[in-house]
Amino acid sequence: MDKAQKLTRADLRNASPQEIRNLIRSGDYRDVTSGLARGYTQVNLVVLPGKYAEDFHRFCQRNPKPCPLLSISEPGAPRFPELGPDIDIRSDISSYNVFRNGELTEAVCDVSDYWTDDMVGFALGCSFTFEEALEEAGLTLRHNAMGKICPMYTTNIDANPAGPFNGKLVVTMRAFPAPDAIRAIQVTSRFPGVHGAPIHIGDPAAIGIADLDQPEFGGDRMPIEKGEIPLFWACGVTPQLALKTARPEICITHTPACMLITDVKSAETAAF
Amino acid sequence: MDKAQKLTRADLRNASPQEIRNLIRSGDYRDVTSGLARGYTQVNLVVLPGKYAEDFHRFCQRNPKPCPLLSISEPGAPRFPELGPDIDIRSDISSYNVFRNGELTEAVCDVSDYWTDDMVGFALGCSFTFEEALEEAGLTLRHNAMGKICPMYTTNIDANPAGPFNGKLVVTMRAFPAPDAIRAIQVTSRFPGVHGAPIHIGDPAAIGIADLDQPEFGGDRMPIEKGEIPLFWACGVTPQLALKTARPEICITHTPACMLITDVKSAETAAF
Repeated sequence: MDKAQKLTRADLRNASPQEIRNLIRSGDYRDVTSGLARGYTQVNLVVLPGKYAEDFHRFCQRNPKPCPLLSISEPGAPRFPELGPDIDIRSDISSYNVFRNGELTEAVCDVSDYWTDDMVGFALGCSFTFEEALEEAGLTLRHNAMGKICPMYTTNIDANPAGPFNGKLVVTMRAFPAPDAIRAIQVTSRFPGVHGAPIHIGDPAAIGIADLDQPEFGGDRMPIEKGEIPLFWACGVTPQLALKTARPEICITHTPACMLITDVKSAETAAF
Repeated sequence: MDKAQKLTRADLRNASPQEIRNLIRSGDYRDVTSGLARGYTQVNLVVLPGKYAEDFHRFCQRNPKPCPLLSISEPGAPRFPELGPDIDIRSDISSYNVFRNGELTEAVCDVSDYWTDDMVGFALGCSFTFEEALEEAGLTLRHNAMGKICPMYTTNIDANPAGPFNGKLVVTMRAFPAPDAIRAIQVTSRFPGVHGAPIHIGDPAAIGIADLDQPEFGGDRMPIEKGEIPLFWACGVTPQLALKTARPEICITHTPACMLITDVKSAETAAF
């Protein structure tokens, strides 16, 4: 019996992070997490064997816009205590991707069987937090309004390498009329822990994007209307590209759009 | 003997606001004030007969981006005590413009003979402050580097009217490569008291500017280089347009680029 089926979208939206995590942990919720436990920070997950941890940690430190590191676990301890005292990294995400030698091999809803006592978890900030702030500021995010996934693109910008981790920067694109574009830069500048300000504005070709109509990584095509300006933010898919290059024998991430919901209020991640 | 002739540009740049005001008050400095007393806020001046004061005050309140009001004098008292205890509105600016019925009739270096006991002075924030902050943030302002005056344009945007004061919004334009454009929005957002964030980015035609190569109000043409994006800020010339419409029998302003130098540190006008 799927308990989550009894819950309306409004119930899920107004639920506490703990309530959502309990539903996910018990297998009663297996869908994407956008809009759930509104007002709380959702994070990207990367789990790596211990021997890769220091290099990947340095990769995050050197690439704070795509990889804003909000928490790192103790080796072998599947916990992010500062993100929520009861969080279990192995069971509290609705869908995990498992990569072997850099290739996606399976998606599962619990990774307890994969966990080893040297694994290290990394929690990286996610754009859901700043999207919430943009919407609260009165801006329209058309992909959200249409129930679509924000378009993503690989750029020609190299991430700063660390050990075996390197690759191109991946960006998300959101287009706004000029005054809203200015406002969007202001609002997201307040959230350096969840990708922060855009890394580019205007001409996509300047960062190596040949065609905005061909998004990657499952993002949806979002046409740019007359008078709109595209803004490009560093994206949490960047570390996944770097993982493909590093080819660790195993790596666990969340499945895109199925995030870990934390007890940290979105407003707490604001810098000012 | 012109004392200021003995002073180098570096002397003037490092001088205190009081030293510069003393030179100006004694008639020993009669030039533009950009780069003088670096680190201190310079302001636009508007002086009006008492019967216009309340309407113009409301015009400022309704148009905070072009008319950021930093101080208003007591009627008849030529002082801005919070901007500098010794400031004399009548003598501390190197060149004043006098308008009669909305038309410029003379430029003088002291307005003591014009001052009446009902006159009210308005000190409005000036973009010199945020330009200083932009340069400190490492951005290049090409018009400054070339010793040119920032280009200004009348837009098709109506200022919010108050009494007889109304007119179009005037903007300044500064162009930057995309990453610097984002940074410029961040930096100037911190300075709402000196025009704040841009009001427009990108296509000039969207705000009624037909040709960027035809700046107005004495600004210089500044070509936009490949990869640059134009940013448009509300400009302190906006109230001068509104004064032309209101046609008060007399009005005194500073001459463009000859500002009142205050004791307020630029950093003090930052919002965060």
